Amino acid sequence: MKKNTNKKVLILGGDGYLGWPTAMYFSKKGYTVAVVDNFNKRKWESEVGVSPLLPIFSLQERIRIWKDITGKEIISYIGDLSDQRFTEMVFEDFIPDSIIHYAEQPSAPFSMKGNTKAVETQVNNVVGTLNVIFAMKRSCPNSHLIKLGTMGEYGTPNIDIEEGWVEFEHKGRKDRVLFPKKPGSFYHLSKVHDSNNLEFACRVWGLRVTDLNQGVVYGIETEETKIDKRLETSFHYDDVFGTVLNRFCVQAVAGEPITPYGKGEQKRAFLNILDTLQCVELALLNPPKSGEFKIFNQFTEVFSINELANIVKNAAEKMGIRAKIKNIKNPRSEEEKHYYNPINKNFLDLGLKSNKLSDVLVNSMLKKIEENRDNIVRDTIKPRIKWDQGKK
Amino acid sequence: MKKNTNKKVLILGGDGYLGWPTAMYFSKKGYTVAVVDNFNKRKWESEVGVSPLLPIFSLQERIRIWKDITGKEIISYIGDLSDQRFTEMVFEDFIPDSIIHYAEQPSAPFSMKGNTKAVETQVNNVVGTLNVIFAMKRSCPNSHLIKLGTMGEYGTPNIDIEEGWVEFEHKGRKDRVLFPKKPGSFYHLSKVHDSNNLEFACRVWGLRVTDLNQGVVYGIETEETKIDKRLETSFHYDDVFGTVLNRFCVQAVAGEPITPYGKGEQKRAFLNILDTLQCVELALLNPPKSGEFKIFNQFTEVFSINELANIVKNAAEKMGIRAKIKNIKNPRSEEEKHYYNPINKNFLDLGLKSNKLSDVLVNSMLKKIEENRDNIVRDTIKPRIKWDQGKK
Repeated sequence: MKKNTNKKVLILGGDGYLGWPTAMYFSKKGYTVAVVDNFNKRKWESEVGVSPLLPIFSLQERIRIWKDITGKEIISYIGDLSDQRFTEMVFEDFIPDSIIHYAEQPSAPFSMKGNTKAVETQVNNVVGTLNVIFAMKRSCPNSHLIKLGTMGEYGTPNIDIEEGWVEFEHKGRKDRVLFPKKPGSFYHLSKVHDSNNLEFACRVWGLRVTDLNQGVVYGIETEETKIDKRLETSFHYDDVFGTVLNRFCVQAVAGEPITPYGKGEQKRAFLNILDTLQCVELALLNPPKSGEFKIFNQFTEVFSINELANIVKNAAEKMGIRAKIKNIKNPRSEEEKHYYNPINKNFLDLGLKSNKLSDVLVNSMLKKIEENRDNIVRDTIKPRIKWDQGKK
Repeated sequence: MKKNTNKKVLILGGDGYLGWPTAMYFSKKGYTVAVVDNFNKRKWESEVGVSPLLPIFSLQERIRIWKDITGKEIISYIGDLSDQRFTEMVFEDFIPDSIIHYAEQPSAPFSMKGNTKAVETQVNNVVGTLNVIFAMKRSCPNSHLIKLGTMGEYGTPNIDIEEGWVEFEHKGRKDRVLFPKKPGSFYHLSKVHDSNNLEFACRVWGLRVTDLNQGVVYGIETEETKIDKRLETSFHYDDVFGTVLNRFCVQAVAGEPITPYGKGEQKRAFLNILDTLQCVELALLNPPKSGEFKIFNQFTEVFSINELANIVKNAAEKMGIRAKIKNIKNPRSEEEKHYYNPINKNFLDLGLKSNKLSDVLVNSMLKKIEENRDNIVRDTIKPRIKWDQGKK
């Protein structure tokens, strides 16, 4: 019998870009996997008028196909974590050992679209997470919550970014405190609110939580999505849900200019979707003690946006695609020239073997996009949401 | 003509313990005052089965009586700040110069009653404040928001508590960051969430916000509430909405033991309700620059809970009331022995003349309570909500 065969993993947001590959990843390894989703993300995509590049089968179809191919069952709970009764029911029914929590509104621009979307983002994310910790406390107080946060919670401080906790020496006295944060959107703020609520739940109730401050994820495939076309995951390249490298690759293939926002000297932390899976597994295998709030910075490399643009341009040119870079007015309010030195020692110490960004990877992304070139909707790439618009 | 006669002040939560005295205070000084309330607080009192010690007239009656006596009009908007349309309407209609924001669920125990109340507290407080900043941005981007936070956001760190911002030196580099926080309940957390949202709104939209981290307020009367019995403000002595000194005074008069929670060596920052009015006015007269997020620690003295118990006991005995102190099991999770050195230089520099806690003040509170002795409901004083219960 395989190690961990009888361990139960509950994946919140199991229909998403990361949630679905994570579900297959743990299912393949012999875990008992259940997923929760309310399909809010699909609704939000419709609201802003965008679609993933690859056609995505419904969650239920993908679960059926996964079972047909592998013989493994993924349990699904369809409902909303903002609904306390539903959340309690899921936890009471499944009694997870570990919970991987991706079930949040994931887009900074979406949260900056105006009052309604700012409120919707913060309520969805904060209330869902509150209901999860109350359900854990009630049904499985020893389980381990692995919560996805973001490196964007920290902003771009003029000091090294430690992994969540830091020793603060002040006027000759010391304390261990949460690393100060300076988030860049109402979305990023929602993750800061979550982190603060979670630290409290660990401190007061003795829960076990690992908060993963994740960098910007890129990539289109995992070992499991490659098994069958119908198992693919949601790949976004639009201005609202598309992350920057994914967006640049699509721009190159579409023959559009690659468009860094502003000066492009902003630096960010990045990781391959394969490393998201690896990190989440490492976190799961190394749970905190009761009452401990662990925080890991989850990324493998730091690039400036201009560096990324150049990497994509060069890779495209090697494939015979003429790409050009055009810096455009920054729709966001962010520092465009700043110090940036985030630490990611925790995962390296746990044995993370990172899949660094290489020409080969960018090549394979470009090829995959090329195959689906006809699906690209050019109008949805350029930024439509400005940070200073604020109004409805 | 008096200074500021034509300045418009909007008071959010104008029916409350602090909101109503603040409305009268500014009205008397010649400001044009409007109040907003949805009477959630009165509903919550009914839910937990408690009443203020003094019978409180309705907001509309108090406004009418205030006009009869002083000739001054207080405008009222009845509705919920969680309702975006209502909030926009209020701001568009009144176009305030300053906004004083008390309109939040104010009780830590209430927020710890279980999942439903934790969510209700955070949603009410966070969404109301989000709607307020969006309405400011839309209708009066140069107005000044004075937002009530709490000293409880900081918790009890082992370092001096600065006023919101602090210079952080780390590995030879420096940045000015928000002071790290360690709040003690879902209520306190909601105020931390607000502060983080407000800092962002100043940084990105150029709003002007003063965040007042207020200590525990005590007192039963202000100059204006004393004008007429029907203008009195809501005085709570119960386990949910009553603050500690108010509770101790009522216990002494009722012939019940004064009950510090736990060891009673917890230290907290305190201020007289008269100083709340003075501080809020000082803040209003010294608005931040556009984009500046000012933070003041608003208190005048620090006491341990045992010290307060002894002050009340001694004052009671001078009045011939035999009082005894009985430390009881702490329903909260908090450090009972800790370093505590909060700074309150900002208000002192602006000229705050503090009304320190004296025997005279405690005496006058005890007398006022004595007059209303028959209203005391003993059963509602002892703590019913435990921090570690968590369940609904």
